[in-house]
Amino acid sequence: MQIVIIGSGNVAYHMAKAFRLNGISLAQIFGRNEKELSKISEELNIPYSTEYLEDADLYIICVSDNSVGEVSKMITKKNCLVAHTSGSLPKENLSGEYRKASFYPLQTFSRSKELEYDKIPFFIETENEEDTKTLFKLASSISKNVMESTHEKRKYIHLTAVFACNFVNHLFSRAKEISDAQEIPFDYFLPLIDETVQKIHEIEPKQAQTGPAVRNDLRVLELHEQLLQDEESISIYKTMNHSIQKMYEL
Amino acid sequence: MQIVIIGSGNVAYHMAKAFRLNGISLAQIFGRNEKELSKISEELNIPYSTEYLEDADLYIICVSDNSVGEVSKMITKKNCLVAHTSGSLPKENLSGEYRKASFYPLQTFSRSKELEYDKIPFFIETENEEDTKTLFKLASSISKNVMESTHEKRKYIHLTAVFACNFVNHLFSRAKEISDAQEIPFDYFLPLIDETVQKIHEIEPKQAQTGPAVRNDLRVLELHEQLLQDEESISIYKTMNHSIQKMYEL
Repeated sequence: MQIVIIGSGNVAYHMAKAFRLNGISLAQIFGRNEKELSKISEELNIPYSTEYLEDADLYIICVSDNSVGEVSKMITKKNCLVAHTSGSLPKENLSGEYRKASFYPLQTFSRSKELEYDKIPFFIETENEEDTKTLFKLASSISKNVMESTHEKRKYIHLTAVFACNFVNHLFSRAKEISDAQEIPFDYFLPLIDETVQKIHEIEPKQAQTGPAVRNDLRVLELHEQLLQDEESISIYKTMNHSIQKMYEL
Repeated sequence: MQIVIIGSGNVAYHMAKAFRLNGISLAQIFGRNEKELSKISEELNIPYSTEYLEDADLYIICVSDNSVGEVSKMITKKNCLVAHTSGSLPKENLSGEYRKASFYPLQTFSRSKELEYDKIPFFIETENEEDTKTLFKLASSISKNVMESTHEKRKYIHLTAVFACNFVNHLFSRAKEISDAQEIPFDYFLPLIDETVQKIHEIEPKQAQTGPAVRNDLRVLELHEQLLQDEESISIYKTMNHSIQKMYEL
């Protein structure tokens, strides 16, 4: 099977790398950003192009949601399978006469961070059983964790991921702003952060909640609001405490 | 040195256990909740009382901030050291004629979750060098990570911890609500959550940000707001996205 990856961002890079590490050869990596493509091409030993899209059986589109529709129009071939990697778009967002699919890896991809690909859950949706089998086999060569998912479900998976990953990371950014301003090394907080996550492998997060809001410690809540300077952090502080207190009916 | 721990909650339990595991014997664990005390006493083989406070050289008060002042008044002895474990109270909140100290473990303590005590940062503040040495030695028997900290700094350490731990855990709770409602197993998200945290051991959180807000993907942000039902989750969603977009000047 000839496979082409379209895109040159973090998802494209890690997808290509995951395939390569698992012995699946790629016919091409295609995109607009020649600088990025040539770097990926060199590292992973995959041909690249910014102009000529290689003939393939499967195209995996790894570009931002906004660009999926436009990019998918470049594939004029009919007898092939085209998948996007978006958590929120329907496969019908792909625009062409080929067979359409969704191939969604539930993970946060940063270019410079190595990943254990075999733990990434993959969610697959296609138009027919044979394509499902094809993508299942392909994803299973990377990961132990491959499932089917409708678009309806995938939207909620993505939404949950935004809370559990994107917002969590932003809390780390805001936390670091606070500690940086006081010249407190952020490393101090890493054991606490690690434990916060280890805990929810064993306990329901709702049972694991600690801190001033769930203790209804109004004195500390007020003190903290006074310590905070930044408008956004104050807004996060109030919103999160309100939500905690609602959840525990305090 | 005779040491007494006051309290019967999560901090008291783990503090007592950490001492016991490191061969430091405790003269007593003292508190109001006989049921909890007797359980801790039995598990860790430490005498307990709800009435008679044992004579000691060091009392470590592990109760909620609101109770520290009141509880500290029970110690009528003068020639002794009394420390609380609060992140936000000054040591002067302790009310008595003894020497006062802060002995703050930066960690989230849940009763049923085992902990690696040697990684917990301890922050110490006392009235004189000798007491600092005493508490340093004691904390160092548990942890490799012992530091001095003023009350001023400790307040900010605690505030940072609220963002990096308490709020993060609450995001996990809200995330799980969303996935539970769609019958999506929360286990799917654990590799993503683990990676979110592993990342910030290597990359600055501000560089590690992914997701629709930092991509300025307004279509997804709008879609997600429509999917959310719960008022608190909507409020969190909007607040966090706003804060992300401000941080990246989008």
